Amino acid sequence: MSRVLILGGGGMVGQKLAHRLLADGLNGAACEITLHDMAFPPSGAEVADQRRGNLADAGQMEALAAEKFDVIFHLASIVSGEAEADFDKGWQVNMFPTWRLLEGLRAEHEADEGYRPRLVFTSSIAVFGGPYPDVIGDDYLSAPQTSYGAQKSICEAMISDFSRKGFIDGISIRLPTICVRPGKANLAASSFFSGIIREPLNGVEAVLPVSDTVRHWHASPRAAAGFLTHAGTMDLGLLGTRRALNLPGVSCTVAEQIEALREAAGNDVVKLIRPEPNETIMKIVEGWPRNFDPQRAISLGFRAEKTFAEIIQVYLDDDLPKP
Amino acid sequence: MSRVLILGGGGMVGQKLAHRLLADGLNGAACEITLHDMAFPPSGAEVADQRRGNLADAGQMEALAAEKFDVIFHLASIVSGEAEADFDKGWQVNMFPTWRLLEGLRAEHEADEGYRPRLVFTSSIAVFGGPYPDVIGDDYLSAPQTSYGAQKSICEAMISDFSRKGFIDGISIRLPTICVRPGKANLAASSFFSGIIREPLNGVEAVLPVSDTVRHWHASPRAAAGFLTHAGTMDLGLLGTRRALNLPGVSCTVAEQIEALREAAGNDVVKLIRPEPNETIMKIVEGWPRNFDPQRAISLGFRAEKTFAEIIQVYLDDDLPKP
Repeated sequence: MSRVLILGGGGMVGQKLAHRLLADGLNGAACEITLHDMAFPPSGAEVADQRRGNLADAGQMEALAAEKFDVIFHLASIVSGEAEADFDKGWQVNMFPTWRLLEGLRAEHEADEGYRPRLVFTSSIAVFGGPYPDVIGDDYLSAPQTSYGAQKSICEAMISDFSRKGFIDGISIRLPTICVRPGKANLAASSFFSGIIREPLNGVEAVLPVSDTVRHWHASPRAAAGFLTHAGTMDLGLLGTRRALNLPGVSCTVAEQIEALREAAGNDVVKLIRPEPNETIMKIVEGWPRNFDPQRAISLGFRAEKTFAEIIQVYLDDDLPKP
Repeated sequence: MSRVLILGGGGMVGQKLAHRLLADGLNGAACEITLHDMAFPPSGAEVADQRRGNLADAGQMEALAAEKFDVIFHLASIVSGEAEADFDKGWQVNMFPTWRLLEGLRAEHEADEGYRPRLVFTSSIAVFGGPYPDVIGDDYLSAPQTSYGAQKSICEAMISDFSRKGFIDGISIRLPTICVRPGKANLAASSFFSGIIREPLNGVEAVLPVSDTVRHWHASPRAAAGFLTHAGTMDLGLLGTRRALNLPGVSCTVAEQIEALREAAGNDVVKLIRPEPNETIMKIVEGWPRNFDPQRAISLGFRAEKTFAEIIQVYLDDDLPKP
């Protein structure tokens, strides 16, 4: 039975992935799951092996590498805002543990050349920085404008090189902004993209801090779990030496998001969105990509929603709290 | 007087830069030069402060950072072939010392916010990997196919982020293949590009291991010294957040190189080039970029030769051993 480790397994996407693996297994076969994170939700995925730990602690990544998991999903990082506010912590959490993990896996490979684990790393569209073309193609440069983006970009380069050398079989997937995130708003500047859908659907007022002409790139939590399991099982040889991938998503404006919400839930729900322009958030969001043409990922079988209406439906199906 | 440190100051390009700084100063003013390297040529640039050291040794970069140089030229690395053969050494020499230097400079900046040193890092067109367009534009992705290229690309991302945060004022310049290199052939796969010009001009036979249809991207050692001093003095604010730069050069085929040699030195000299196809070198060179459109660098005032004839003339003027 495949042994699977999810780093960041307590987070929203990690939990979605764990639920998916519990339900469908990996490649149609059941797998043994280990979750690693600082904390876990109280009624989360029913995985017996849940390890509390800090991936930045000395020896932590080396010890995990020594367990020779077959597939490692590396989703753990501090978010963009925190990496920006605490420069040192950003690098110590978002970069160096990945290096130590890779070195640990290389040591296991060198001791046993048959061992070449699958590593799926969640990178981000934060590796890009403006000015952008209207549509970002697969061969557009990385030019991060945050430390978080720089750290993701660097981990991508390491994972590509360790893969090229045959020590691991790795891939970095650049997730779109995940929307609609269940649960509470968080401090990310992107939080409102989920908030303006989620709060009204729950009868709560939501603040819209930007103009409704803002265009951005989205995929659902369900699509994220699908990206991860596909990346965990597909033939990565098809990627050649370019092992960082832009993923499919839905490009739409906030106005289009709101229209989709109106169609799904009616005018009274939409009335719960209150415009309250926030210069700081507007300035941050201005620097974000608006649209992609992810031909490689699509040809490699990665799938996301086609419309924002589908993204809302996923929230209604999977995450809307039942009364 | 500006205090200038050249890491890799014993190498060919480091020496060219030292000579240039001794002759012209920096920004027209004399500067105090420190060279750091593992070794120095016997009759090299006449710089009093030459430090033998290994930048990978513990404490070495931190100690240099603590000296608070005004301008640091970071040219030190092991070459592509060695980084490929000795994976561990590649990362320990080509990446981690750069991180420690940056952290050392950040510590100095944090102790004295007026201190924000200029850092000029020699990156390489090895950050690119095929398949390529015929001409590589300024927004083409980095996709290294060697560990050396991955290490250069990662150092670029760190330098950009430390610059964005205001800890340093840094730039990474992606040097073309430097040609005609004076002195002896080295083990680099690119060595023949210089060899087929240099050896015949010195009355010695040269081996051509690839087809003469191979196209590549060149600039002279004199141009390299010019890139460096320009990068050391220009207003880097003009770069915005994209602080890694493709540089100008000459795109030409080996046949065009040979014709330029014929015009400069005659048929008998060209007859000293002996074709001897080498599959290994052909395969490596196939993966290299052929041409660039470095609009940003040109608009920022970086200048290289316009023709390969000029590149040969630079060798004749600057480096041909006098009888």
